[in-house]
Amino acid sequence: MEQRVSFVTLAVRDVARARSFYVDGLGWEPELDVPGEVLMLMAGERLVLSLWDRAAFEVELGAPVLVGNGVVPMTLSHNVPTPDDVREVIDLARAAGAEVVDPVERDWGGFSGYFADPDGFRWEVAWNPGPIGLRVVPGTDVDARP
Amino acid sequence: MEQRVSFVTLAVRDVARARSFYVDGLGWEPELDVPGEVLMLMAGERLVLSLWDRAAFEVELGAPVLVGNGVVPMTLSHNVPTPDDVREVIDLARAAGAEVVDPVERDWGGFSGYFADPDGFRWEVAWNPGPIGLRVVPGTDVDARP
Repeated sequence: MEQRVSFVTLAVRDVARARSFYVDGLGWEPELDVPGEVLMLMAGERLVLSLWDRAAFEVELGAPVLVGNGVVPMTLSHNVPTPDDVREVIDLARAAGAEVVDPVERDWGGFSGYFADPDGFRWEVAWNPGPIGLRVVPGTDVDARP
Repeated sequence: MEQRVSFVTLAVRDVARARSFYVDGLGWEPELDVPGEVLMLMAGERLVLSLWDRAAFEVELGAPVLVGNGVVPMTLSHNVPTPDDVREVIDLARAAGAEVVDPVERDWGGFSGYFADPDGFRWEVAWNPGPIGLRVVPGTDVDARP
């Protein structure tokens, strides 16, 4: 098995509301847009972020999605080249209506905050000066692979 | 905000068990390996899959993770060039001890199955002959961007 994630699919309660946040609020461009069903956005060279209607998700997965108190046990991160970039993206998310956790210095040596999208999926916005942090930020990687 | 996901972080109950599945079972190579705390694996050119101890995840997120019946409302997908590749990866996951859903033809024109990792995170293994499916598979993209 090759070591690749191709799609990250999030089950959303309201595709239009999710679209409004990602497209109008954060400024992302849709790659495939089927109103009420699914919105797909490129999120890397060979990576798609897919926002999929929860009812359809449950039919294909054959099980109801987990609901209740607490947070979904996963996060997506958006890494940036400087701490100021972290503040800027957090401010953008706040302006787009997201709940945010203001960025702080982290024990692991970086600086990061969080925002939640309309379905409660948590995004970390991070400056990570370590080798693996540099690997993921365009233009700053020390060991890019083809 | 640039349109990028840098890390996909999954909160896992037992890092050693998750490591055994991804590294020994699926054959992935660790990029950063801190036993009992976190395992990070490259999952794209600028993308890291991070398996993080759930207790530490809860401390940083400031909230308990959602538990209960039902599936986590997200999936990761691994797209491959042919239907036979789908069968092969599903067989590999089964041999690694995963619960699987055998692949079937999908309404959207592709062929896909699922497996669950030891924490129940669902992976779709998919052949998607549509334009967005081709975009994410190395060597088959019709419109690769730099």
